[in-house]
Amino acid sequence: MNVGHPAFTWDVRVYWEDTDAGGIVFYANYLKFFERARTEWLRQLGLGQQALREQTGGMFVVSDCGLRYRQSARLDDLLLVTASPVEVGKASLTIAQTALLKPQQPGETPTLLCEGSIRIGWVDAATLRPQRIPPAVLAVLQAGSASPTLTT
Amino acid sequence: MNVGHPAFTWDVRVYWEDTDAGGIVFYANYLKFFERARTEWLRQLGLGQQALREQTGGMFVVSDCGLRYRQSARLDDLLLVTASPVEVGKASLTIAQTALLKPQQPGETPTLLCEGSIRIGWVDAATLRPQRIPPAVLAVLQAGSASPTLTT
Amino acid sequence: MNVGHPAFTWDVRVYWEDTDAGGIVFYANYLKFFERARTEWLRQLGLGQQALREQTGGMFVVSDCGLRYRQSARLDDLLLVTASPVEVGKASLTIAQTALLKPQQPGETPTLLCEGSIRIGWVDAATLRPQRIPPAVLAVLQAGSASPTLTT
Amino acid sequence: MNVGHPAFTWDVRVYWEDTDAGGIVFYANYLKFFERARTEWLRQLGLGQQALREQTGGMFVVSDCGLRYRQSARLDDLLLVTASPVEVGKASLTIAQTALLKPQQPGETPTLLCEGSIRIGWVDAATLRPQRIPPAVLAVLQAGSASPTLTT
Repeated sequence: MNVGHPAFTWDVRVYWEDTDAGGIVFYANYLKFFERARTEWLRQLGLGQQALREQTGGMFVVSDCGLRYRQSARLDDLLLVTASPVEVGKASLTIAQTALLKPQQPGETPTLLCEGSIRIGWVDAATLRPQRIPPAVLAVLQAGSASPTLTT
Repeated sequence: MNVGHPAFTWDVRVYWEDTDAGGIVFYANYLKFFERARTEWLRQLGLGQQALREQTGGMFVVSDCGLRYRQSARLDDLLLVTASPVEVGKASLTIAQTALLKPQQPGETPTLLCEGSIRIGWVDAATLRPQRIPPAVLAVLQAGSASPTLTT
Repeated sequence: MNVGHPAFTWDVRVYWEDTDAGGIVFYANYLKFFERARTEWLRQLGLGQQALREQTGGMFVVSDCGLRYRQSARLDDLLLVTASPVEVGKASLTIAQTALLKPQQPGETPTLLCEGSIRIGWVDAATLRPQRIPPAVLAVLQAGSASPTLTT
Repeated sequence: MNVGHPAFTWDVRVYWEDTDAGGIVFYANYLKFFERARTEWLRQLGLGQQALREQTGGMFVVSDCGLRYRQSARLDDLLLVTASPVEVGKASLTIAQTALLKPQQPGETPTLLCEGSIRIGWVDAATLRPQRIPPAVLAVLQAGSASPTLTT
């Protein structure tokens, strides 16, 4: 995370649907939580994905992900999910993400549950062929992640 | 179920993804199991849904469902999911479905876990407007469900 | 819905995880949305389900559900999900639920997407045997749904 | 994959539930497919996870995963999912996994869709504290993955 450039954060509540018979959040579901936070991060930049697709014919797809599970979340837990762009390139971007357990008391430090890195690329929605991110979209992403290293 | 016209059956194994923190299969997931069995019932009639859509521009969507949950399923359980058309109309069909726990010993009676009724209609895939089921598809459905009451 | 006793409402955003290749919300996922709204309705009555289970050894499970799908929801849609208890008995309760598309403009009428009725019963969490709802929980439910017909 | 020690393989059909509005399998769902193949690999070694938990009080949980998405899968595709243990330690094991598109014609080469590495550890099911894998379980895992490097 960039000091001084706080990550985008999104609250996620753990419901029955998210848990498994181990009594904890099923491991694949952190990818859902991370996707929600990325979607909301894009939305607050003005990049609604349904609108983007209608306007450009393209969409983001995930090309790589890596996750480390540190602690488990349980039913009714309230999580704080973060999204921080760490690299914005012409055809893909990499986003560092975490899921934290929100402390019960304000002032307490959140507990890290899961952290990961997700790389997303831009594809033509019909052919699924990789493409350059449309310039107008790229400009917004670059402006919205001023602190990370920009690559070309 | 139609005596003498055995229902289509499909095996479904319960994995971690299907369970919740109650230690049982999450209630919404029976709709996934039922959808898998309907898909395989259609497939063995020669009606692959991806191919149907490419050929006709239409697809089935669910318009109504009702489920009764009788017993719970747990991790590693092996289920028998049935699909029996009970009514085939020009724009929709109704399918009776059950999820049964497969007995450990052959010859034992399966335990009823969940039973329901699902009505599916045909829509244009682009506009989502209801349409008549294409005649070639309807003919296959009618032939494949000879025993139910056919409605017009 | 009870005139004068507005239903409990909960916002649900449609994410990629909720949609299917038909471009719309997968039919089983309305049961997830409905469960979230029921959970939040219980929470605002002071009934957190994880805490309830730790305190009483019991939990709610769904025994019946019926859904009618009226219109489809798409990626990025913002839904209003309602929960209105319509019957509170000693061992189960029935909740009327709807999913509505939130209008873009304030003042416009929401579009009904899906409506249903869900019956939940109380079980011992270890044995899954049906039980009477604990009196303290029942009292809260009855107070929190003053207008519905109370049955005994 | 170990030449001469073919990976365990498990067929997975793509259903509506697995796809998203992009028309392809939602990225988190490969973790479901991989978990199914790991579960079946363990099962054919005689390690049913529900039974293991009842006998030992412990269970496997995922501690790390990394995935690369190469090609997309679509509705009705039939996948071949592999699981190959690459390291078996006293408290965790690492499994290489792939999802391949099954060729339409026998003899054709399957297309790689997604590949990854999953590390799972053993925890006490009640406390979720990491523990050594029970010796009887470890012996089975080591015998069942004779070719990988065994670590201590």
